[in-house]
Amino acid sequence: MSSFRETLETFPNPQSGRDYQIEIVCPEFTSVCPKTGQPDFGVLTFTYTPEEKCVELKSLKLYLQQYRNEGIFYEAVTNRILDDLVGVLAPRWLQLAARFTPRGGITTTVTVEHRAE
Amino acid sequence: MSSFRETLETFPNPQSGRDYQIEIVCPEFTSVCPKTGQPDFGVLTFTYTPEEKCVELKSLKLYLQQYRNEGIFYEAVTNRILDDLVGVLAPRWLQLAARFTPRGGITTTVTVEHRAE
Amino acid sequence: MSSFRETLETFPNPQSGRDYQIEIVCPEFTSVCPKTGQPDFGVLTFTYTPEEKCVELKSLKLYLQQYRNEGIFYEAVTNRILDDLVGVLAPRWLQLAARFTPRGGITTTVTVEHRAE
Amino acid sequence: MSSFRETLETFPNPQSGRDYQIEIVCPEFTSVCPKTGQPDFGVLTFTYTPEEKCVELKSLKLYLQQYRNEGIFYEAVTNRILDDLVGVLAPRWLQLAARFTPRGGITTTVTVEHRAE
Amino acid sequence: MSSFRETLETFPNPQSGRDYQIEIVCPEFTSVCPKTGQPDFGVLTFTYTPEEKCVELKSLKLYLQQYRNEGIFYEAVTNRILDDLVGVLAPRWLQLAARFTPRGGITTTVTVEHRAE
Amino acid sequence: MSSFRETLETFPNPQSGRDYQIEIVCPEFTSVCPKTGQPDFGVLTFTYTPEEKCVELKSLKLYLQQYRNEGIFYEAVTNRILDDLVGVLAPRWLQLAARFTPRGGITTTVTVEHRAE
Amino acid sequence: MSSFRETLETFPNPQSGRDYQIEIVCPEFTSVCPKTGQPDFGVLTFTYTPEEKCVELKSLKLYLQQYRNEGIFYEAVTNRILDDLVGVLAPRWLQLAARFTPRGGITTTVTVEHRAE
Amino acid sequence: MSSFRETLETFPNPQSGRDYQIEIVCPEFTSVCPKTGQPDFGVLTFTYTPEEKCVELKSLKLYLQQYRNEGIFYEAVTNRILDDLVGVLAPRWLQLAARFTPRGGITTTVTVEHRAE
Amino acid sequence: MSSFRETLETFPNPQSGRDYQIEIVCPEFTSVCPKTGQPDFGVLTFTYTPEEKCVELKSLKLYLQQYRNEGIFYEAVTNRILDDLVGVLAPRWLQLAARFTPRGGITTTVTVEHRAE
Amino acid sequence: MSSFRETLETFPNPQSGRDYQIEIVCPEFTSVCPKTGQPDFGVLTFTYTPEEKCVELKSLKLYLQQYRNEGIFYEAVTNRILDDLVGVLAPRWLQLAARFTPRGGITTTVTVEHRAE
Repeated sequence: MSSFRETLETFPNPQSGRDYQIEIVCPEFTSVCPKTGQPDFGVLTFTYTPEEKCVELKSLKLYLQQYRNEGIFYEAVTNRILDDLVGVLAPRWLQLAARFTPRGGITTTVTVEHRAE
Repeated sequence: MSSFRETLETFPNPQSGRDYQIEIVCPEFTSVCPKTGQPDFGVLTFTYTPEEKCVELKSLKLYLQQYRNEGIFYEAVTNRILDDLVGVLAPRWLQLAARFTPRGGITTTVTVEHRAE
Repeated sequence: MSSFRETLETFPNPQSGRDYQIEIVCPEFTSVCPKTGQPDFGVLTFTYTPEEKCVELKSLKLYLQQYRNEGIFYEAVTNRILDDLVGVLAPRWLQLAARFTPRGGITTTVTVEHRAE
Repeated sequence: MSSFRETLETFPNPQSGRDYQIEIVCPEFTSVCPKTGQPDFGVLTFTYTPEEKCVELKSLKLYLQQYRNEGIFYEAVTNRILDDLVGVLAPRWLQLAARFTPRGGITTTVTVEHRAE
Repeated sequence: MSSFRETLETFPNPQSGRDYQIEIVCPEFTSVCPKTGQPDFGVLTFTYTPEEKCVELKSLKLYLQQYRNEGIFYEAVTNRILDDLVGVLAPRWLQLAARFTPRGGITTTVTVEHRAE
Repeated sequence: MSSFRETLETFPNPQSGRDYQIEIVCPEFTSVCPKTGQPDFGVLTFTYTPEEKCVELKSLKLYLQQYRNEGIFYEAVTNRILDDLVGVLAPRWLQLAARFTPRGGITTTVTVEHRAE
Repeated sequence: MSSFRETLETFPNPQSGRDYQIEIVCPEFTSVCPKTGQPDFGVLTFTYTPEEKCVELKSLKLYLQQYRNEGIFYEAVTNRILDDLVGVLAPRWLQLAARFTPRGGITTTVTVEHRAE
Repeated sequence: MSSFRETLETFPNPQSGRDYQIEIVCPEFTSVCPKTGQPDFGVLTFTYTPEEKCVELKSLKLYLQQYRNEGIFYEAVTNRILDDLVGVLAPRWLQLAARFTPRGGITTTVTVEHRAE
Repeated sequence: MSSFRETLETFPNPQSGRDYQIEIVCPEFTSVCPKTGQPDFGVLTFTYTPEEKCVELKSLKLYLQQYRNEGIFYEAVTNRILDDLVGVLAPRWLQLAARFTPRGGITTTVTVEHRAE
Repeated sequence: MSSFRETLETFPNPQSGRDYQIEIVCPEFTSVCPKTGQPDFGVLTFTYTPEEKCVELKSLKLYLQQYRNEGIFYEAVTNRILDDLVGVLAPRWLQLAARFTPRGGITTTVTVEHRAE
């Protein structure tokens, strides 16, 4: 479990009696490749239906900035961010699609989804 | 419940015997972030099937202008506007999609829906 | 019931033994706002399957021109035009979508449909 | 029944054991409005699955040119052309979509379909 | 000289020491054809460099609405509107391009220009 | 010299003291090929600066419709229409660009220009 | 059956244990019209799932070049090419869409499909 | 001269030996119409070649937010913002294009330019 | 000098007193590569100002079809066609641009021009 | 079985408890045609759901570079790469679409898919 998640703040869902959808696009994500030490860049798109909590946007931005000097694979970082948000929000449903910019001429997109049981 | 809704005016649905659809797009919505005091900007798209009342457009415009200096979260304002319209119109069905412009590099869209039982 | 409908002329459906579809797009509709007295502009799209009659296009044009100086709400004018066409044509099916140009920064589309029982 | 259809020539379907589709687009159709005597212009799109016969293209072109000075409504000409082609080809299926250029600011599309029983 | 021009209001150019450009697009212009009595529709684009006065937009809108039931040729109305604006504003430079929607399959654009000597 | 030109009507230039430009686009021109007897189709674009006369649009439409059953080459018809308009209007400047639809896989555009001396 | 097919070479499907799809687009097909002797031009798009054999591309190109001086109708050539490929490849599934360039202002597309039983 | 300009901060041009261009697009400008009290919305595009100073972006944002409740005409606000930036930056060249959203069906763009002598 | 040119027919320039321009686009040109024997495909664009003669289009089409089985380089064929047209038409000016489709991933365009002295 | 696959490296799927999707686009693939010795170029798009392993991207790049001087058919190389990835990753699902650039005017796309049983 990630210690980064302590940065994430929430506020009470203002309308928990009704299902609705929130989409958040973060085009400025950056981390570091664990093999080459080179910076990676990506666009993260979150879509979720809140249960009792919503994520506060500024804290999400600060949370994501913690990965700036973190060496981590695409697949790992996408799953870890999903896990942190699910841990903090306990949403009805949450999807994260991470599209990374080309490296060595190769472009990668990782898509992960959580659904409350 | 919001005192803003007193601004909303209605007129009788001219054809209540038939289901039909009204779409209203308001690209000039602005409110204020409750954390930073900075202005937020968004495009609101309403789609609804009226029951006995339709919303008068100029009153909707004036209603939305009341949020110009109001500090309120995206999720809260979207749900509150839906609640106010549902309270005044009692429509058969109403959806509100609010797409906000980027803040700190982050773009958010909130979509809420009401259906008469 | 609208007296304007007397302007509408029809001719016998040349092939009433077969279901087929007619689409008519009128981008030059104009009426007057009953609240402000200002002109409104819209694009009307009719789609229908005739039963025994087809609408004559020049008479449809003259019918629509009667609204040029008529003060009437979007929702009312869309339903009234549908009612007039249904009254004159008794079609198997008819849909009217009316997309009006922005007023006060707000764009409205009204969609109405009739189906013979 | 139209005497124009004598112009239409066919040739044996080279592969009648198999269902396949032929699409023919004729953007240069012109006839005359029976009310005003003014020329009309349209794009005809035929799509069909042949049974035992295919239409010869040059004869189709000459067939359509016979309407050049013919006064006839949109709905009538579209159905009549379909009837003539169905009469000559006896196809498994044939659709004709006729999109006419604007008249008095109004654009019309007529779509007719035949399916062998 | 046109009596319509009395509707036009101006306000002092806030920066008369400097040449700058104002573009105003009016897509909802309509008048009447003097030969057929049918409505005409057009898009007017004004571009000008003010001298001592700017045109007030609401008064321009009301000025143009006066042509709604006026029978006048394309070339005449374009020149007359230019004359009225030049008479009221005495601008350094003003161009008016009027693009009318198709009539009888024919599209017309009239472009007029005034330059102070 | 063409007898067709008698169809062309003019009206006095409403602003002969000033140079301005009129563009007229006619996408529905059709004539007949003198070699094959097959119909030709083209788009005519007129651009001119009037001297004392403007061409009346309905008469231009009727003038062009006279070519509907006329056998004439692309180059001849383009020059003849220019000559007729120059003869009737005596404009300061007039250009005619005629773009014909493909024949035998070949597309032709003829451009002719007249300037008053 | 066509003697042209002897030109077609195949190679063993490198992975016959698995269903997969091959799409081949040939934009430079040309043959001759059997009525007029004039050349025809078209774009052929093949899509297939191989069984035991794949078509070698250079041999397909040479096969298609044999039609360069062959007089044959659109419908016949499309079916004949399909038959030849089916005869040589015995594929699980094969579709051929042939889009020919305009002739006499008319554009034709023929689409044929084979599925192994 | 505007007191708002005190909000604007600058930093030294890092490359004053060379002419280069900076473009800044601000799509969230809003002020108030001095005639109707209704909010106006616009997109401001600044383009400039710095001399000794560049504008700091956060201070530009705060500077522009001061107009949120200011009643001012399009032409006046565009010139005033240009004057303030020229006063603070003393640039080699600066252009400001302000495109405002439609009001009463009319769209306005004001373009102002300053060049150092 | 090419014997193909005997195919080219001309007709008298209908307006030899005036300079005007004729553009002819032929997208279906094909010849054979003299090295590989493979077919080449290209788009030929002719632009010319006639002196006393114009080229007849059907004869131009037949002239170009003679190259269908001719082995000839891009540069040679482009110059030879220009020479033939100049020899037959003696135009005031003629340009030929030949754009060939890719071979081995390489696209070639040859442009030749003749001007009467 | 391919000896190239020894180059492929993997790392443990950081979230094997959950189904998610990884898309990798490699636009710089090149191999050699086994018949002509000419280079081929293609874009490879991998999409997969990992089981216990993910492919390391730099090793994938080096793996693909081994084909640079390898003579191999499109169908063979696409299947062989799929086989190598399936052998090394044992994924829940993997699809490879290989779109090759035109050769002799012909464009080919091969699409292969593996699903764990």
